[in-house]
Amino acid sequence: MADRDLRIAVVGAGMMGGDHIARLTQRVSGANVAAIVEPDAARADAAAANARGAAVHADIRDALDHDDLDAVLIATPGPFHAPVLLPCLEAGVAIFCEKPLTPDSESSLRVLDAEQRLDRPHIQVGFMRRLDAEHVALRELIASGDLGALLLMHCAHRNPSTPPTYTEAMLITDSVVHEFDTVPWLAGQRIVSVDVRKPRRNSLAPPSLDEPQLVFIELESGAIAIVEINVNVQFGYQVTTEAVMERGVAEIGRTAGLEVWRDARWAGAEHTTFKTRFGAAFDVQIQRWVDAVHRGEIDGASAWDGYLAAAACEAGVAAQRTGQRVEVTAVARPAFYDSRPDPLGR
Amino acid sequence: MADRDLRIAVVGAGMMGGDHIARLTQRVSGANVAAIVEPDAARADAAAANARGAAVHADIRDALDHDDLDAVLIATPGPFHAPVLLPCLEAGVAIFCEKPLTPDSESSLRVLDAEQRLDRPHIQVGFMRRLDAEHVALRELIASGDLGALLLMHCAHRNPSTPPTYTEAMLITDSVVHEFDTVPWLAGQRIVSVDVRKPRRNSLAPPSLDEPQLVFIELESGAIAIVEINVNVQFGYQVTTEAVMERGVAEIGRTAGLEVWRDARWAGAEHTTFKTRFGAAFDVQIQRWVDAVHRGEIDGASAWDGYLAAAACEAGVAAQRTGQRVEVTAVARPAFYDSRPDPLGR
Amino acid sequence: MADRDLRIAVVGAGMMGGDHIARLTQRVSGANVAAIVEPDAARADAAAANARGAAVHADIRDALDHDDLDAVLIATPGPFHAPVLLPCLEAGVAIFCEKPLTPDSESSLRVLDAEQRLDRPHIQVGFMRRLDAEHVALRELIASGDLGALLLMHCAHRNPSTPPTYTEAMLITDSVVHEFDTVPWLAGQRIVSVDVRKPRRNSLAPPSLDEPQLVFIELESGAIAIVEINVNVQFGYQVTTEAVMERGVAEIGRTAGLEVWRDARWAGAEHTTFKTRFGAAFDVQIQRWVDAVHRGEIDGASAWDGYLAAAACEAGVAAQRTGQRVEVTAVARPAFYDSRPDPLGR
Amino acid sequence: MADRDLRIAVVGAGMMGGDHIARLTQRVSGANVAAIVEPDAARADAAAANARGAAVHADIRDALDHDDLDAVLIATPGPFHAPVLLPCLEAGVAIFCEKPLTPDSESSLRVLDAEQRLDRPHIQVGFMRRLDAEHVALRELIASGDLGALLLMHCAHRNPSTPPTYTEAMLITDSVVHEFDTVPWLAGQRIVSVDVRKPRRNSLAPPSLDEPQLVFIELESGAIAIVEINVNVQFGYQVTTEAVMERGVAEIGRTAGLEVWRDARWAGAEHTTFKTRFGAAFDVQIQRWVDAVHRGEIDGASAWDGYLAAAACEAGVAAQRTGQRVEVTAVARPAFYDSRPDPLGR
Repeated sequence: MADRDLRIAVVGAGMMGGDHIARLTQRVSGANVAAIVEPDAARADAAAANARGAAVHADIRDALDHDDLDAVLIATPGPFHAPVLLPCLEAGVAIFCEKPLTPDSESSLRVLDAEQRLDRPHIQVGFMRRLDAEHVALRELIASGDLGALLLMHCAHRNPSTPPTYTEAMLITDSVVHEFDTVPWLAGQRIVSVDVRKPRRNSLAPPSLDEPQLVFIELESGAIAIVEINVNVQFGYQVTTEAVMERGVAEIGRTAGLEVWRDARWAGAEHTTFKTRFGAAFDVQIQRWVDAVHRGEIDGASAWDGYLAAAACEAGVAAQRTGQRVEVTAVARPAFYDSRPDPLGR
Repeated sequence: MADRDLRIAVVGAGMMGGDHIARLTQRVSGANVAAIVEPDAARADAAAANARGAAVHADIRDALDHDDLDAVLIATPGPFHAPVLLPCLEAGVAIFCEKPLTPDSESSLRVLDAEQRLDRPHIQVGFMRRLDAEHVALRELIASGDLGALLLMHCAHRNPSTPPTYTEAMLITDSVVHEFDTVPWLAGQRIVSVDVRKPRRNSLAPPSLDEPQLVFIELESGAIAIVEINVNVQFGYQVTTEAVMERGVAEIGRTAGLEVWRDARWAGAEHTTFKTRFGAAFDVQIQRWVDAVHRGEIDGASAWDGYLAAAACEAGVAAQRTGQRVEVTAVARPAFYDSRPDPLGR
Repeated sequence: MADRDLRIAVVGAGMMGGDHIARLTQRVSGANVAAIVEPDAARADAAAANARGAAVHADIRDALDHDDLDAVLIATPGPFHAPVLLPCLEAGVAIFCEKPLTPDSESSLRVLDAEQRLDRPHIQVGFMRRLDAEHVALRELIASGDLGALLLMHCAHRNPSTPPTYTEAMLITDSVVHEFDTVPWLAGQRIVSVDVRKPRRNSLAPPSLDEPQLVFIELESGAIAIVEINVNVQFGYQVTTEAVMERGVAEIGRTAGLEVWRDARWAGAEHTTFKTRFGAAFDVQIQRWVDAVHRGEIDGASAWDGYLAAAACEAGVAAQRTGQRVEVTAVARPAFYDSRPDPLGR
Repeated sequence: MADRDLRIAVVGAGMMGGDHIARLTQRVSGANVAAIVEPDAARADAAAANARGAAVHADIRDALDHDDLDAVLIATPGPFHAPVLLPCLEAGVAIFCEKPLTPDSESSLRVLDAEQRLDRPHIQVGFMRRLDAEHVALRELIASGDLGALLLMHCAHRNPSTPPTYTEAMLITDSVVHEFDTVPWLAGQRIVSVDVRKPRRNSLAPPSLDEPQLVFIELESGAIAIVEINVNVQFGYQVTTEAVMERGVAEIGRTAGLEVWRDARWAGAEHTTFKTRFGAAFDVQIQRWVDAVHRGEIDGASAWDGYLAAAACEAGVAAQRTGQRVEVTAVARPAFYDSRPDPLGR
């Protein structure tokens, strides 16, 4: 691969595509959005405004022909994935494809066939739960065998609402598809069978949807995962998994992160370093500083704030030494530091 | 500012400097590490290995003279900040300075004087808690006045251990300096006075440190923040703030994030969208994919995983329609997809 | 009913019977254990030692004939309930019967027939979850309709272990029998059907038990309760119910009591009065004091402790008035107050 | 002590006295309310209505002279304790005295003097936190030394409101008096000094109270307890203690009970037996059944409920054996079981 930032075409400029464009241009290092492929011209232009220099096309073939691409990120609805995947594989570019790969196994097999004509796998599928720290920790716990064999999983998959185009089959193909990847990935076992049961219907769901539903996933060992798929709950978004093992129960997706019940205690991990507690804040801070410098500004605490803290430290060290209350004094703030309006008027 | 990725010199290649180099090269968009300034040659070389193409210098002036810098990030110990800040200000580059700005107010004022010779503030100080989502949420809650006036803050600042060079004064200048910035920033008020009280000494602290200590920060309104500074607790890392207001109490830094007690209920926010629940996983996923493509690989779910999920979806839709248990069948996995070793042997 | 403490016969002096004898003699007001009915003589005598003055019999008929009973409490295994219930009903005494009433519906109907020859119901069954504060609060929440219709319940019923006599059918008749009472009581609906599914077997369960099992309880409205019955988990005891309603989810049985997820927040109740926070401590305190007075002792804080608190209060009021640190002084402790050994040597 | 239920006089029939009368008559075994001493005739009569057979007096001496008392429970305001304690000690009866013993140390010493004329301590003081399970567990944890020496305690003492008669000194003598007992009891050490600091005043407090206040309690070892006394918070009732030790932190008074942070984990205890999880429900159940039997009723699940559960069990066992869905059938409910109206119409 050339030693340059990746030139990427983003295919589909809807909600997910727009989100990925922002990610690639504003937060990810080593990549640029070189092209946007979107048949809806207005939507394409709006997306291009956020990706300086990106070409705009209505068809992936035009992008592959003209934009010197290293990679393609596919964010269209699932039924449109195969027609984009096949020419991309032919062109030999790297591919990131949002889930599902395709909505049915026959079209997926056609994609696999095409990919196998290349020297190695080129497609990565957007099952992002595999990168979620809690899911990773749960998988490691199960794989360690510390708590014995996995017996059951109770999964809740609750979304506030669905778009108008959402059909009952999509409960499976668009939503439970996540669990169809996550459950065997967590358990280290393949799926043997599936069945579905319908409890009382939620009157708040759209008329065309008979939900919630219970999906039973049977694994090779006999372990069962019960998925509550419930995607018009309106009161919030929640993805939880409670894994019942022989010697303990572990749960993710609650506010406290991974919690484990064993030896008569429920316990959650506490931080051991600022790198985990404040890691995201450090990343955001430097990204925002870099972005502000591009604009000729700062975006965070100023030297004035640093001075005020130094003045307080001086008083603090004196107080520490003397055991007395020490007043904190400061020079008047120069107008020079007034430039950034502070909503709290400090 | 030139329309190019920022050319940044990182000054200091210790633990914090190395962390910032990794951040700038691997995760932050729009910036490159152009130079590393570090007098310890071995440490400088080790750092340079992680920043392809970065020049190495023992003195900031050499970097300013030769490396066409846009910005400087200072990560040396606090006493060495001023000697780097002053030539950088003279050169007019953008500056990110780790906390503290300087360890005392006199040197801070000298820095402010130098900065004011420029057209606008150029220094941003690394009080990263201002970018922590929980701190931001607490500040907004206090500023909203919904829970009445702020009366008290109980702050715990607990670290597992301190380095050998850490002195008792650094309890204030290196650790409580965070609260000296955060407490007034949260409260929207200046600090009026400080005093310190010492309870029983922790026998596990290094012999030179008499800690924990209690630091009392009095604000303009009379509100008091009590800071427990306790930096050799060994069992974990924790930064918490419990803000007592007239009509409620809010707390951050516990595992469940911002929690509020009002109207006889303790409550924490639940997610309302996948963008908050899985936002970090999405960012990590795409960054890891971009990094893998640079290496000619994928780093996540493959098309084979996508096919398996499609096969399960087919069974799921059939099960949903028929009410029966449906077996999930799949073709044999082609050796083509064996290339990535999977620790779980799936 | 005569205006005297109830004269009660406890039938069965095993673990549950012994627990009830302790309850009736040591904590419950208005009742005495007048007789113990237990065919195992050694066990009967051991139980009688804890119930001063109680007669001992091997057969309930002897107790009914000779002990002037007001009531009978039945704590034998379920299959022995009917032979005790029938003569008690004939005698017209009040009856408390541990769950289950009987293990099958035919024998239960015989008991109902006998009871209906009396003027009013005389039997109360020990479904004690109906008296658990969390279950009561959940029932009220469901009945209020505030969160819309009930759609699903996820119930976990986890016990550390089972006795040697426990059979696989007892998973249903001895354990899930609780949910067979609680689920319809919580939902305000009858049970329509039941089915059972078996996931992977827990290798730590006794060889004769194929568990855990999943029991599906279908209610009149179509709502489904899924019960995980898992009674050899060894690591703890847990009974939880998560009720999924149209506009929110409520859960009981976790450490934080009843928690509700609605409007994007998880919230739990906080106390509003010492009567709930310390109600149990007040009851225990007075019961222990009464018991100690019977022994000629005290069992709690002494007048000396009261004096020490008064001395601290004096210092506290002075400190409050003066803003100064005030030493707390006390006279030497008279040997008179040494009599109660204190494990902490205070 | 005579082998009969204790004959107790309750002195003071206000809120606390009324609460104790209900406890002694309705929940505590082995005691009766033989007399009520209350100068306010209307209040005395109201209280007597809840204690069948209790004599009513305006002066403790009349009760001591005429009511054959074994014990006295004192629930008047603190300043009236000494005038009741002294004649009771002279009479040699057992005494339970609500906190404080007396409001100042001089009067407390007079009481100690009088008590020492008896053969052994007769007074127990109502520091009921010593009987609270969480406080007991925290004390044991501290005393065990497992987490090293105690360094700090952070105590919050928050009440919704205070009565009109509450004065600023009572912040100390009526409220912090609890911590003046609990802190040394938890720590196993005496109090050395006290001081008080006042942060910003809560504008919702009554005009005569300058609160919240911070009370510092210094112990023999140098450990410090900081008490936030804050008794007009309106939004709830909370008593918490966070004990900072050398190798861990333990906290009580939050919804999850005793939680401990050590070895990088926060953990709370889970139940290991139904006896702790449902112990209170068992006690309440039997007390309510006994009370109902006195009224000629039942108060809980009936035999009809027992029959319904038996019918479900039968279906459950069949479902377990066959793997099929089994319908639950029941005979029609006889009118005999309609007598207890059920708010849910079940």
